[in-house]
Amino acid sequence: MGAWYIERGPEADVVVSTRVRLARNFKNFPFPCRMTAEQESMVLSEARDAVLNGNSAIAKDFVFVNLQSLDNLDRQVLVEKHLVSPQHAEIKKYSGVLVSRDERISIMINEEDHLRIQCLFPGMQIDKAWELCDKIDTLLEERIDMAFDSSYGYLTSCPTNLGTGIRASTMLHLPALVMTGYIRNILEACSKLGVAVRGLYGENTEAAGNMFQVSNQFTLGKSEADIIAGITNITQQIIEQERVLRAELYKQNPYRFEDKVCRSMGILMQSRIMSTEEAMKLLSDARLGVDMGIIKNVNGETLNEIMLLSQPASLQKYAGKLLGPDERDIRRAELIRNKLQHRI
Amino acid sequence: MGAWYIERGPEADVVVSTRVRLARNFKNFPFPCRMTAEQESMVLSEARDAVLNGNSAIAKDFVFVNLQSLDNLDRQVLVEKHLVSPQHAEIKKYSGVLVSRDERISIMINEEDHLRIQCLFPGMQIDKAWELCDKIDTLLEERIDMAFDSSYGYLTSCPTNLGTGIRASTMLHLPALVMTGYIRNILEACSKLGVAVRGLYGENTEAAGNMFQVSNQFTLGKSEADIIAGITNITQQIIEQERVLRAELYKQNPYRFEDKVCRSMGILMQSRIMSTEEAMKLLSDARLGVDMGIIKNVNGETLNEIMLLSQPASLQKYAGKLLGPDERDIRRAELIRNKLQHRI
Repeated sequence: MGAWYIERGPEADVVVSTRVRLARNFKNFPFPCRMTAEQESMVLSEARDAVLNGNSAIAKDFVFVNLQSLDNLDRQVLVEKHLVSPQHAEIKKYSGVLVSRDERISIMINEEDHLRIQCLFPGMQIDKAWELCDKIDTLLEERIDMAFDSSYGYLTSCPTNLGTGIRASTMLHLPALVMTGYIRNILEACSKLGVAVRGLYGENTEAAGNMFQVSNQFTLGKSEADIIAGITNITQQIIEQERVLRAELYKQNPYRFEDKVCRSMGILMQSRIMSTEEAMKLLSDARLGVDMGIIKNVNGETLNEIMLLSQPASLQKYAGKLLGPDERDIRRAELIRNKLQHRI
Repeated sequence: MGAWYIERGPEADVVVSTRVRLARNFKNFPFPCRMTAEQESMVLSEARDAVLNGNSAIAKDFVFVNLQSLDNLDRQVLVEKHLVSPQHAEIKKYSGVLVSRDERISIMINEEDHLRIQCLFPGMQIDKAWELCDKIDTLLEERIDMAFDSSYGYLTSCPTNLGTGIRASTMLHLPALVMTGYIRNILEACSKLGVAVRGLYGENTEAAGNMFQVSNQFTLGKSEADIIAGITNITQQIIEQERVLRAELYKQNPYRFEDKVCRSMGILMQSRIMSTEEAMKLLSDARLGVDMGIIKNVNGETLNEIMLLSQPASLQKYAGKLLGPDERDIRRAELIRNKLQHRI
């Protein structure tokens, strides 16, 4: 099994990845925003030990990463892979992450909550992601006394996570909804249904490359199963609408449609300078071309890989050195050319 | 030897082709604008016979084309190959053209003058073009009594051609002069020196694809040799300036420069719909890339061929049928993709 950015899962023509995360806190420590350095350190080592030490069934599957031991670039790479949140990558005294070897599970320690258990799968695999999260949570709860209230449920730093502490989300590629403007209707409907829609890297990020993250806004008053069912339901409706609009747009003018995606492909294959923003835009067109069967000699996994590797930190990691913004644009173009030509 | 659009000649990085033409009229007939249909017919057959019949040394090299026997498409193809002028392609009662098998010589009959002898060479070969024109003229004058006045020289329909009746021109690709805006200085200087600068298809055509035709404005009061020397001289100066500016632009920002030409190449290789105008623009970038050594797997001859074949009439000829404007744009994109992929 590979990470979300290497494999393509079910419904991959629209759903890039699925994520479920649980917010959990130790009962015997104040929330992270109120901890002393000593307490931070204790939470970090207790969480690490719960997974890696003793007779833990999952010990051998995980790697512990002390975020303080990483330089800024390596922390940003984790953010770009969605293994830690942007907030978690900021420098603190004691923070870390436990990452499974296939990069599908990450457990952030001392983020906004003591623990953020996250499972990330390629394509539409929300039930699997939830099952795995639940399993990891059960294993952790055998070792850690969690902050739980019989009427409120799990207690969290921020009240928006109170109760189940669950956030289930799907990352959707919605070019046809954007092109036709119908995305506005989706956004309105979601907002009324208590479903949040964000860009690729969480809150306050624009929908670069027509990528939208759909997730539940409320964690209280509903069971995990109901929340998962709700996100599944709305995601399936959006998938259906996106597919209908793609077919419609193609039918309206096949040559115009093919021309758009093929030109973007041509530019990706030949450019010498490319910004992240432009890359995301063109990769969205290329992905649409692949998913519509127009571009046949490139596969979706390659586009996923390029999308990740062309982000600023991953790109510098790939280049093996720090790069200024202009150098990044040159290296990005080079990376994209190389990746596309090797797969054609 | 191949036609101007198949081979590349000397200085091909700037000079696409060279043309010399002579205007001549029969002494015993009124100018074309004043001829009766019968006289038109007589001029046509006398001119044809002078080349093709008897013991003419060049008879076997020429094909006579009766323009009335061609449909509109075939006449336009001749225009796009520069073998006849746009005016000559318009429907008249009796008109024709004698074309050499290598398409380097054409003798228009009953154009603005009774005869327009034209030699068209790839690259900068103005002396060769003039020598060949002069040779054809001498052969014709052995058989035809030309309208000549001892003080004015050759008499022509329009006084602008009086005297030598010569027009020498070079077709120049000047992207760097256009990009930097210095083309304005060239146009001003040329105008002061009695040199005309026009677009690709003669008078009243825009400089599509950064192509400029430089030719002498005056035919009277100077010898043919002086006129040829003048156009040679100004062409060489323009070549030099264009080359300096190309090197300068490249040096200023090599990546930006390469990015521009390579993106155009990428679009040419992948688009599904392309107008003539866009094709000319992108082919200009591609040509610049080839001539600067940036694009290595395409040759200039292929670009010449594409530039010709993507013109509306040639494109329809290539497709083997009449096409509406939208179909042409689709076929043009297809033609360009095929031609470029075969040569890479």
